Amino acid sequence: MRKLINAPADVVSDALRGLAAAHSSLRVDPGSGTVVRADAPRRGKVALVSGGGSGHEPLHAGFVGPGMLDAACAGEVFTSPVPDQIIAATMAVNGGAGVLHIVKNYTGDVLNFRMAAELAEDEDIEVATVVVDDDVAVQDSTYTAGRRGTGATLFVEKIAGALAEEGAALAEVEALAREVNERSRSFGVALSPCTVPAAGTPTFELAEGEMELGIGIHGEPGRERVKAGTASEIVDAALSAIHADMPVDGAELLVLVNGMGGTPLIEQYVAYAAAAEWLTAHGATVVRPLVGGYVTSLEMAGCMISVCRLTPRLTRLWDAPVETPALRWGR
Amino acid sequence: MRKLINAPADVVSDALRGLAAAHSSLRVDPGSGTVVRADAPRRGKVALVSGGGSGHEPLHAGFVGPGMLDAACAGEVFTSPVPDQIIAATMAVNGGAGVLHIVKNYTGDVLNFRMAAELAEDEDIEVATVVVDDDVAVQDSTYTAGRRGTGATLFVEKIAGALAEEGAALAEVEALAREVNERSRSFGVALSPCTVPAAGTPTFELAEGEMELGIGIHGEPGRERVKAGTASEIVDAALSAIHADMPVDGAELLVLVNGMGGTPLIEQYVAYAAAAEWLTAHGATVVRPLVGGYVTSLEMAGCMISVCRLTPRLTRLWDAPVETPALRWGR
Repeated sequence: MRKLINAPADVVSDALRGLAAAHSSLRVDPGSGTVVRADAPRRGKVALVSGGGSGHEPLHAGFVGPGMLDAACAGEVFTSPVPDQIIAATMAVNGGAGVLHIVKNYTGDVLNFRMAAELAEDEDIEVATVVVDDDVAVQDSTYTAGRRGTGATLFVEKIAGALAEEGAALAEVEALAREVNERSRSFGVALSPCTVPAAGTPTFELAEGEMELGIGIHGEPGRERVKAGTASEIVDAALSAIHADMPVDGAELLVLVNGMGGTPLIEQYVAYAAAAEWLTAHGATVVRPLVGGYVTSLEMAGCMISVCRLTPRLTRLWDAPVETPALRWGR
Repeated sequence: MRKLINAPADVVSDALRGLAAAHSSLRVDPGSGTVVRADAPRRGKVALVSGGGSGHEPLHAGFVGPGMLDAACAGEVFTSPVPDQIIAATMAVNGGAGVLHIVKNYTGDVLNFRMAAELAEDEDIEVATVVVDDDVAVQDSTYTAGRRGTGATLFVEKIAGALAEEGAALAEVEALAREVNERSRSFGVALSPCTVPAAGTPTFELAEGEMELGIGIHGEPGRERVKAGTASEIVDAALSAIHADMPVDGAELLVLVNGMGGTPLIEQYVAYAAAAEWLTAHGATVVRPLVGGYVTSLEMAGCMISVCRLTPRLTRLWDAPVETPALRWGR
């Protein structure tokens, strides 16, 4: 294990202390593993709460701030946050207009967010839930009934966050979040495994010269293990799988080429070049590109491609100002 | 080699094609390896040109845009850009007010930028040069007479870029760039080597359980190889070396905790927590923190810490708006 950590048991709380020290725009409680906008609760604004296992940074805490999430709950590495965290975050950001839970589709996450939503209803907080399940690689997986939630989570959080910031009602924000999820697809490829600190051994073995197509963000098995290909071959595999599930020809796309944590930016841009060419050749237009490590899997090498079929409204909301540690732009 | 690339010889030009496709704010010429602000030349504005070997992304091309660099020259991986690239970039951005070359202190870079500056003078373009040499780890190195230029390059480019944007004259921008370099120090630690694509073998060997203190950004040897430590021990080694060279007590600091390319963000925040605590305990105040992979070394695991002793003027210029692929903030 070549990790920049102290004790394996302290990774998440140490990282949260670092987040707190680096970002005065956030209220971080390393003890409970919750990260909240410093100006929460915002009276009359629908609040967005997400969360999940740690190890995917900047997802989710790096997306807390004006124009995106109101709060994030950080579970242990690759482990769902517990209901207590979720209800604490929900109550901290409730501004009286209801709270939207954005949940990646993993069994533990879905269950714990549901329990927290029930507790919130007991407190007279209206909660709506959207489950993100964008990963086309596998139908069910190690930790999932149905498809996994991966890169499109960022799209849902940004676009729904922008609508909430404009003052839309809970039902409208919920419907939009669902729409973004339905219009989005992802597919990931691993060139190396990663190691959960508390486990100390890699999540899987991958021989030199092999890669795993359709990998999840926790090292879950994908579709198949094949001979490692070039960036263009990897991108072709990912985009072909996406296109087979949701045709992209004629679409205006938001495209994320996402580094998985151990793949440097220069390689992500190599992959983006191939993706842009593939999509153009298949009749799609990339109108909003994003390249970087936004939904990672510890130090796993590889990349994930996520696409969203935009509408003029979705494009406008994507472009709306956002002010978080990991995504930041103005008018 | 677990790399997301096509042919090793095409890595830089493929990545530049990706950069061009992803950022319409840039004019990228993958053939010549130059990246220029789309609105260049800016009449009457001092232009900033930097560059160096590729493999350190987002440095330098990711810092091209309003408030920072006017152009960057991308050499082959870990290889200095050639004078032809530098003169092409210099001429492309010259707005009549002179051009500042920001050069990391490596022998090849210094030599090639000097040749380009002489060619520019023949074209009646006034060029000033600032050499960045912030790395306290070693006095001379494999590729350097004197100290290496590493993380402070980002500080120099951002702060001098802000002053140039305000309309300051060349001599003033040059003096400020020099001041930022003189007030900055860096120290890096590697937990793994990296592999130059064209070479195919790691830059050095590091046994499991070892780390290299004072590593350069090209896998050059550092000060010593020791037993791998905790994040707190690594941060203590880095900050102790910096503090011994430039005391930080009583200072208001800009601090970068920089991932080297293969270390994920969660670990960078673990390191930042330790750095913030160390600095507070030693009487420094961190007024501007930055955490992320900004000056990388391909997929090397580890981190570098860079600090700059701010003045009110430097803080104001650091805060000034910037609009580049990798650094972006508004007023």
